Amino acid sequence: MTAYTKLEDHFRRYLVLGQAEGVLHWDMSTVMPSGGSETRAEQLAVLKTTRHALLTGPETADLLESAAQVELDDWQRANLSEMERQWRRATALDEDLVEALSRAESACEMAWRGARPAGDFAAVLPDLNVLVALVRETAAAKAEALGLDPYDALLDAYEPGGRQAEIDPLFEDLEAFLPEFLGRVLENQARRPAPVLPPGPFPIAGQRALAHEMMAALGFDFDHGRLDESRHPFCGGVPEDVRITTRYDENDFTSSLMAVLHETGHALYERGLPPAWRHQPIGLARSMSIHESQSLLIEMQVCRSRPFLAFAAPLIGRAFGGAGEAWDEDNLYRLLTRVEPGLIRVDADEVTYPAHVIVRYRLEKAIIGGTMEAADIPAAWNEGMKGLLGITPPGDGDGCLQDIHWYDGAWGYFPTYTLGAIAAAQIFAAAKSADGTITTEIAKGDFKPLLAWLGDAIHAKGSVLPVPELLTQATGRPLDAGVFKTHLEDRYLA
Amino acid sequence: MTAYTKLEDHFRRYLVLGQAEGVLHWDMSTVMPSGGSETRAEQLAVLKTTRHALLTGPETADLLESAAQVELDDWQRANLSEMERQWRRATALDEDLVEALSRAESACEMAWRGARPAGDFAAVLPDLNVLVALVRETAAAKAEALGLDPYDALLDAYEPGGRQAEIDPLFEDLEAFLPEFLGRVLENQARRPAPVLPPGPFPIAGQRALAHEMMAALGFDFDHGRLDESRHPFCGGVPEDVRITTRYDENDFTSSLMAVLHETGHALYERGLPPAWRHQPIGLARSMSIHESQSLLIEMQVCRSRPFLAFAAPLIGRAFGGAGEAWDEDNLYRLLTRVEPGLIRVDADEVTYPAHVIVRYRLEKAIIGGTMEAADIPAAWNEGMKGLLGITPPGDGDGCLQDIHWYDGAWGYFPTYTLGAIAAAQIFAAAKSADGTITTEIAKGDFKPLLAWLGDAIHAKGSVLPVPELLTQATGRPLDAGVFKTHLEDRYLA
Repeated sequence: MTAYTKLEDHFRRYLVLGQAEGVLHWDMSTVMPSGGSETRAEQLAVLKTTRHALLTGPETADLLESAAQVELDDWQRANLSEMERQWRRATALDEDLVEALSRAESACEMAWRGARPAGDFAAVLPDLNVLVALVRETAAAKAEALGLDPYDALLDAYEPGGRQAEIDPLFEDLEAFLPEFLGRVLENQARRPAPVLPPGPFPIAGQRALAHEMMAALGFDFDHGRLDESRHPFCGGVPEDVRITTRYDENDFTSSLMAVLHETGHALYERGLPPAWRHQPIGLARSMSIHESQSLLIEMQVCRSRPFLAFAAPLIGRAFGGAGEAWDEDNLYRLLTRVEPGLIRVDADEVTYPAHVIVRYRLEKAIIGGTMEAADIPAAWNEGMKGLLGITPPGDGDGCLQDIHWYDGAWGYFPTYTLGAIAAAQIFAAAKSADGTITTEIAKGDFKPLLAWLGDAIHAKGSVLPVPELLTQATGRPLDAGVFKTHLEDRYLA
Repeated sequence: MTAYTKLEDHFRRYLVLGQAEGVLHWDMSTVMPSGGSETRAEQLAVLKTTRHALLTGPETADLLESAAQVELDDWQRANLSEMERQWRRATALDEDLVEALSRAESACEMAWRGARPAGDFAAVLPDLNVLVALVRETAAAKAEALGLDPYDALLDAYEPGGRQAEIDPLFEDLEAFLPEFLGRVLENQARRPAPVLPPGPFPIAGQRALAHEMMAALGFDFDHGRLDESRHPFCGGVPEDVRITTRYDENDFTSSLMAVLHETGHALYERGLPPAWRHQPIGLARSMSIHESQSLLIEMQVCRSRPFLAFAAPLIGRAFGGAGEAWDEDNLYRLLTRVEPGLIRVDADEVTYPAHVIVRYRLEKAIIGGTMEAADIPAAWNEGMKGLLGITPPGDGDGCLQDIHWYDGAWGYFPTYTLGAIAAAQIFAAAKSADGTITTEIAKGDFKPLLAWLGDAIHAKGSVLPVPELLTQATGRPLDAGVFKTHLEDRYLA
């Protein structure tokens, strides 16, 4: 074996152990009884430190050095570069920190599960303080090893190459654009008839059957994946076995259905990753913003569009035995594109969603930068919401406790949601302009032209290209908010 | 840290990674879509080799030697001895063999899943030949390292200290006893009215609710465990999160219910293991025969007894809205203790069950001993069944393909079923003679006196004692078939 093929074997083991960790996470979120939490935390801590040790052993550095000397093709070269990136990030941390962080994440997440329904931020604060201290330590260690600002060092784990220096102007642009735009959208919306929610209840069995039908139409392969239930919808698993989840509300089928369509977008990306590079770093999804672009492209760009509803409205009516105006395409379209400032990020429309992200982004930069403490989060949160959306949460349950991210250790993740929304608009526009049949086929329930284009331009690329290059090859330019804004204007001011 | 505490930390990691492997197995058997098989095989192979490397590193040998020099209490001493046992077994194999075996097990099991419904032994034979060659290689390597006969070296993994030299006379005794005894049982049974299966169908929701009710009555804690469905019932998980499974037949509730009660016996053992020794070798269940003794004690000794049915018959009737003679205690007792030679081990009554095990035990000894090849299994199987039970399977699906064990690599496991049946009778008799209220309380649906006794005598002992010593302390003597035979005579010739 050459140094390079030894590295491939090494990283295969590393990534496959990470897949095992993913199975444990899926299980924890969908089926694990509450009493299993502590043992599961132990299992995750041991798996994480075992993986860390595998990557940071003395052999890896030597192999990386040797492999850099030999002739490699473009994909191998990109793979080697991703290996080095992952190795650098791992060696920045010692094993004790990896273990302490894993345990603190599990403990804080457990505390949060109790604190959230009670809206009791004080109950989670002691665990959160421990976690924040370890996250800061992690950020500092990675910052030093990678020569980055601490926040960027965290962000880089989710968004390789992502930097505040590029996000800040994008977000400032949106902050300047959105408040005034929102006012015009609400005015425009007020001139149209308000949509009505079709009369429920919507039995869960019917919602589940409809979800399966829609997933199948989009190309989800149930021999290679599942739909289950969890408190928060997510997509997990591996390309050969993609696991998505949703949660059902008998009084409103739209929230569950849109979650399913969103997660199906993630799942289709995973399924389309390059099979020749399974269990290798470049075989993985490129970044969290690109992942989110694929889920939002399906959910926001496709499934909340008129062409999609031409196909879907009759299926929705049939699923619940409904007929009449409330079930027609036009009402459903207005229902699924209704704009309304609200407290909850995951329920937000695409016009107000960036504000939710910007609030979180500011706060997490301040926390990681050390200019704010965890105890100050509730007040800063409420102030941010008031400033950006004009509303104040009545309690922390609908405020700073609503998302799991900070409490399970995902600091530096939030901006990728809005980067993904911007990318989704840019990518979908490029797809439609490359293949004029995409929209007309969607109206017939045929997603193959769209998926074929996405497969080639995004999915099958894995991580072979940096994000700006991937976007440039797919859409003609790196990320900018232009198409996103045009999309919002077209949809909400028409 | 002393050498001993370092070893505790080392084995904690090793065992906790094994738990992660257990989660992957549970998932594979209950929810994994078929397309996930290959990736799952990869995950299991990597986890197994990673665990193997953890145990066989140079440090472990030194630590074991140092720890043997220092003062330890009895439990620590026993723990150290179990560590050494596990280390010796692991170091007998090199990593390539561990990986090859894991992959061959996954491949052969996958082939078997297709071959079994089709009854097509030829379809699984190529994979089985590969697997048998690797199992023989494993047996030879372990035999050499441990100074054991190759079959004993495999058996010892499931039944520490178990040897053919002790099993053979026990099984010969049963072989001499059972055929004549079976004749008398069938004669006796013919003189009583034949039981009737209460009229079905039995909706699965009702069977599931009844199973939950019975499990709760027995003390199964649903905050620390689950009941799910799988092709073959099993008990997996960890003491804090015990996962049992069953499968439902709408035409017969007894098979599913008895499987649930059997697996609940396994689960209660796991739940009762000593919490102070979690993630340590002596904190684990003692052996497969002791595990099976706990499941059979609950299923066969308790739940197929008259006192249990005094409690359970009304619940069963209520679960399915049934009333009348078919649902009464007396009919259900005759139904659940009906003896009838059949083809399928898992459906066998306790009188004919040992014959199923003896057929398999003979064959696996011959295969491991090299006097028989995998290709000869179907003919030898049919001959064995004809000789011991007087019946010949119409095809391999109901013959040598019926059990997963050989096809997923569990060679040397089968005798523990009958050792467990013998132990169950011996342990239950000791429990009843130690506490006269056990039987009367069972009739009222109160299992606490039984569980308290089992908890002290068996469960909380973990692996601190060798099997013969555990049985001697609990029942006054090591394993012998006397009480088992008396139990059969009392129940089936009364």
